[in-house]
Amino acid sequence: MVGRPLDSARLGETLLPKRLALPIFCSDPLSSVAYATEEILLVVGLGGVALLSLTWYAAAAIVLVLVVVVASYRQTCYAYPGGGGAYIVSARNLGRNAALTAASALLVDYVLTVAVSVVSGVAAITSAIPSLGGHDVALSVGFVALLALMNLRGVRESGRVFAVPTYGFVFFVYLMFGCAAVRMATGATLRAESADLPLHAASGYTGLALVLLGMRAFASGCTALTGVEAISNGVPAFRRPKSRNAATTLLVMGIFSVTMFSGITVLAMVYDVHVAAQPTDLGLPPDTAMPTALAQIARTSFGGADTLFYLLQAFTAGVLILAANTAFNGFPMLASILAEDRYLPRQLRNRGDRLVFSNGIILLALAAIGLIILFDAQLTRLIQLYIIGVFVSFTLSQTGMVRHWRSELATPGLPRRERHRHRRSQAINACGAVLTGVVLVIVLLTKFVHGAWIVVIAMPLLFTGMRSVHRHYRRVERELAAAPGARPWEPAGSHVMVLVNALDAPALKALGYARAMRPTTLDALTVAVDPDEVRALHAQWDAHGIDVPLQVLSSPYRDYTRPVLDHVQDVCRRHPGGAVTVVLPEHLVSRWWEQPLHNQSALRLRARLLFGPGVNVVNVPYRLSDGEPGDR
Amino acid sequence: MVGRPLDSARLGETLLPKRLALPIFCSDPLSSVAYATEEILLVVGLGGVALLSLTWYAAAAIVLVLVVVVASYRQTCYAYPGGGGAYIVSARNLGRNAALTAASALLVDYVLTVAVSVVSGVAAITSAIPSLGGHDVALSVGFVALLALMNLRGVRESGRVFAVPTYGFVFFVYLMFGCAAVRMATGATLRAESADLPLHAASGYTGLALVLLGMRAFASGCTALTGVEAISNGVPAFRRPKSRNAATTLLVMGIFSVTMFSGITVLAMVYDVHVAAQPTDLGLPPDTAMPTALAQIARTSFGGADTLFYLLQAFTAGVLILAANTAFNGFPMLASILAEDRYLPRQLRNRGDRLVFSNGIILLALAAIGLIILFDAQLTRLIQLYIIGVFVSFTLSQTGMVRHWRSELATPGLPRRERHRHRRSQAINACGAVLTGVVLVIVLLTKFVHGAWIVVIAMPLLFTGMRSVHRHYRRVERELAAAPGARPWEPAGSHVMVLVNALDAPALKALGYARAMRPTTLDALTVAVDPDEVRALHAQWDAHGIDVPLQVLSSPYRDYTRPVLDHVQDVCRRHPGGAVTVVLPEHLVSRWWEQPLHNQSALRLRARLLFGPGVNVVNVPYRLSDGEPGDR
Repeated sequence: MVGRPLDSARLGETLLPKRLALPIFCSDPLSSVAYATEEILLVVGLGGVALLSLTWYAAAAIVLVLVVVVASYRQTCYAYPGGGGAYIVSARNLGRNAALTAASALLVDYVLTVAVSVVSGVAAITSAIPSLGGHDVALSVGFVALLALMNLRGVRESGRVFAVPTYGFVFFVYLMFGCAAVRMATGATLRAESADLPLHAASGYTGLALVLLGMRAFASGCTALTGVEAISNGVPAFRRPKSRNAATTLLVMGIFSVTMFSGITVLAMVYDVHVAAQPTDLGLPPDTAMPTALAQIARTSFGGADTLFYLLQAFTAGVLILAANTAFNGFPMLASILAEDRYLPRQLRNRGDRLVFSNGIILLALAAIGLIILFDAQLTRLIQLYIIGVFVSFTLSQTGMVRHWRSELATPGLPRRERHRHRRSQAINACGAVLTGVVLVIVLLTKFVHGAWIVVIAMPLLFTGMRSVHRHYRRVERELAAAPGARPWEPAGSHVMVLVNALDAPALKALGYARAMRPTTLDALTVAVDPDEVRALHAQWDAHGIDVPLQVLSSPYRDYTRPVLDHVQDVCRRHPGGAVTVVLPEHLVSRWWEQPLHNQSALRLRARLLFGPGVNVVNVPYRLSDGEPGDR
Repeated sequence: MVGRPLDSARLGETLLPKRLALPIFCSDPLSSVAYATEEILLVVGLGGVALLSLTWYAAAAIVLVLVVVVASYRQTCYAYPGGGGAYIVSARNLGRNAALTAASALLVDYVLTVAVSVVSGVAAITSAIPSLGGHDVALSVGFVALLALMNLRGVRESGRVFAVPTYGFVFFVYLMFGCAAVRMATGATLRAESADLPLHAASGYTGLALVLLGMRAFASGCTALTGVEAISNGVPAFRRPKSRNAATTLLVMGIFSVTMFSGITVLAMVYDVHVAAQPTDLGLPPDTAMPTALAQIARTSFGGADTLFYLLQAFTAGVLILAANTAFNGFPMLASILAEDRYLPRQLRNRGDRLVFSNGIILLALAAIGLIILFDAQLTRLIQLYIIGVFVSFTLSQTGMVRHWRSELATPGLPRRERHRHRRSQAINACGAVLTGVVLVIVLLTKFVHGAWIVVIAMPLLFTGMRSVHRHYRRVERELAAAPGARPWEPAGSHVMVLVNALDAPALKALGYARAMRPTTLDALTVAVDPDEVRALHAQWDAHGIDVPLQVLSSPYRDYTRPVLDHVQDVCRRHPGGAVTVVLPEHLVSRWWEQPLHNQSALRLRARLLFGPGVNVVNVPYRLSDGEPGDR
């Protein structure tokens, strides 16, 4: 299903050229222009038609932040060619707690990226095909599962899959701008289908309330900034020269992002697009299917060219759903680094058969599916949890970079030109740190009561969880370490017990195996639930002339486990320093679906023996259909 | 949660006096009078007001069948004091296939009894408290879970719990009859609240269609007969003289059932109760909450005495929900008998800590909950699947009894009085067999397209499933049996391999343990995923002066399992007839929730070693926090 296993030596072959790296790492920030404008309009629309002009200010601020953040992260690409995600940069420059804070923030936001992008991609699909409406949860979950499968196959194949919708989306957005420009130049008056709908709005947004509304609109539009981190995190996946290629890709992404976001916002304002959370706020009957802002703009711009409209919607859906892929690259890689540093379970550390971090991919998919189901695939509710994490990690990462350059500048004998370049980088990062810090405060203030509190609780939980995991691994490592010069154990005597229910072929095999261990003492144990069975067992014992003594344990409560545990515990007490072993004969059926037909009590007993008295347990398998005693 | 474990010796104490046996075994047939009349009215109502008089014929036929079936089963109680369920009677007299057919039928119907009774009990509750409507699924599932818990506690406690609602229900139904009689005698004209509602009905029920409608009404009302089987099945649970007490209880139940069913039906006809599947069929707006027929009758009979009405509704709900308990007695007991005869997995055979068949109880609860969720707790849909199974087992059981008496009569030297009594019993059972057979055909014909086909598919599936299980157990038993005079295995040499990742304390303990087994050959195995780790391991090996040779297995695909399996398979091939053992050092953390933090690869490897090459596997546990090497 996920392809043949790949040899470790082929890891080098999967390095990415720029033209494939762009769609893989940048589908998230590029695609978010599909809904960023709409999110601004939704908030300012709360103040009525009169306040729509606030959009201009919010959009301008977002463009400014976007430019600064892209410039900042370009510095990171050069400084950390081995991959400079917020976690690594914070760890190297700000210490462990800052790094774990950044990591918690990023893990939460990767999950939200998947959920938000996929849900909004599904919204693009239902805008074009209204009959699919109502199946949002099923469609979203299906797409997340599909993405997980593709990523389990490996990174190179996915790069090719992602190139088409990303470049297609960029192309059709620019084509839409071109169409709009030509039609407006030829004197057409273009209006959105919702232009004449009233906006039922609460009045009285003046003074502080007006400022807060503007800030909230800005905060909602900041979704356009998510995923910029991905490139700096993924520098090692680029072809050589890695840093330069990564920085260039980041620049190209920035240019695309800024122009597309600005263009869409301008067209939304020119066409008078009106949007609202509920159809009733626009004076429409409830249950009316409302097309997205981008869908309205596209329909108006392309005029009668329905084919172009449907193509743009298709590419929008494609790029949005694939934007979730940024997280499918970032999350498992970050989880693997955290597991390597022993902050997350070690299962997340290893690459699977196909050279990808399989467990991280599965974990991310499950978490995103959980969120989608929990929030009923409603974009407006999910978006409230989004971006907090991104700006926490932005701020920490940029602050870390300022420190990085300071220590670089402290290197003695640095050439003047280097020194000059480092200072410039430091200034850019300082600017980024301050700006993203301010945005973080704004986002927190305006989104907290609307759902962001969930993230504000989840992040510290993750943080303390990772610290506990780390403490646990440190303690285990200390306790497992062999003392210097320690020798293998030399047990004082070996005491073996064979557990039998009947003297059948598996029991005969197990008794023989136990005798071959040449133990100091050897007993057979049986539990007396049914006195008839015990009598039959004694008779068989005599008939076969078995010289191993048979101990009968009584069980008034028809329980097999307790009497055995008590007896074994007793043997342990009588032989301190000795090796106590319980031998369990086990008959194996040849087909797995037959196994539940056989009593699982042996499996339960084994776990209880290991975890309880902590004795050694031997499983002597006897295979049916193709096995006989004396097999191996 | 389910009480302290009980000693096997206390099994005798749980025998039931008649006054407790009645509510335990008879709540099902008694409670079904709460909905049997309504089911008849629902069907005849399809033909409009004119056809309501068909109810008289259907009800009379049902009373006749009920009398005959009760009389028949009283013979069974005497003939089989050890418990004469349809399965046992069919097995002894009609052979294995008939017995398994009866068993499949009963298993299916026990599940349906739980689902139908609980759902209709919830309907009684929502009839009295309409604000609970809409939560039917949750309420039903909750009650099934509650019943399962009570039954897991044991049969004696449950007997007391069930006495109150069963006797309360019987008392209040008779009180209702009394009130109605007194008020009618004093000249009051009593009419149901729905008496004047029109019945929107398809016209044209004449000739064959009319006959079919009557038969369908009869078939629907036959739900009153379910559960009669329970007493004959449960004879061993009665106090001595078991057979006579069981037969008497059955007679009392029959008298209660016939009088209550007749009374309710008469009142429904006198009051002109109109019911329909949809509110719109009665000219009511959709979403109108419709009270049950019994609720309407009770409200009319009690007049203004609201307290009495609510008490009756409460006891109705109680007895209906507890009726499901009949199945919680019957299903696990039947499953245990089938498991004893090796037609079902052996886990169903054993009594648990509290002397009840815990696994059977849990299985029944899960199946019923599944049905309730699948059918959205809609009584009208569930009832279509019901009764087929009951009449299959009735017919088989009565036919078996006819054969039973024939063989009894063939006993030479039987006294004349005995012979006379046997002949009478045989005649009664023959009458029962013919009548229930005819009813089975009617039920199949009239219910098949309305949902009964599901049961018609499920029963043969269960039948073939049980036969496959039986074949499997027979084969395994043959293969497990030791040859006469067989001796324990004497392996030709012992070849032990210790799997290590690092030379830590668990590895030192395992190496020492393996050496104490005094094997012919002893090796340490490690898998080379990371060359650095292998180098470090070699260095440790030298530092500690370990004289066990270290074998390094290469793994290009970063997989630990495959190389080990291949190597072990190879060792097995080189030493035929020898005992090959793999020793797995295992470190155990002291808290269970810490376990997932450690690689589960050892567990996976163990299963693969046992099921794959079939070698012996030793787990040498090393406990952290409180363990050291040389522990035991």
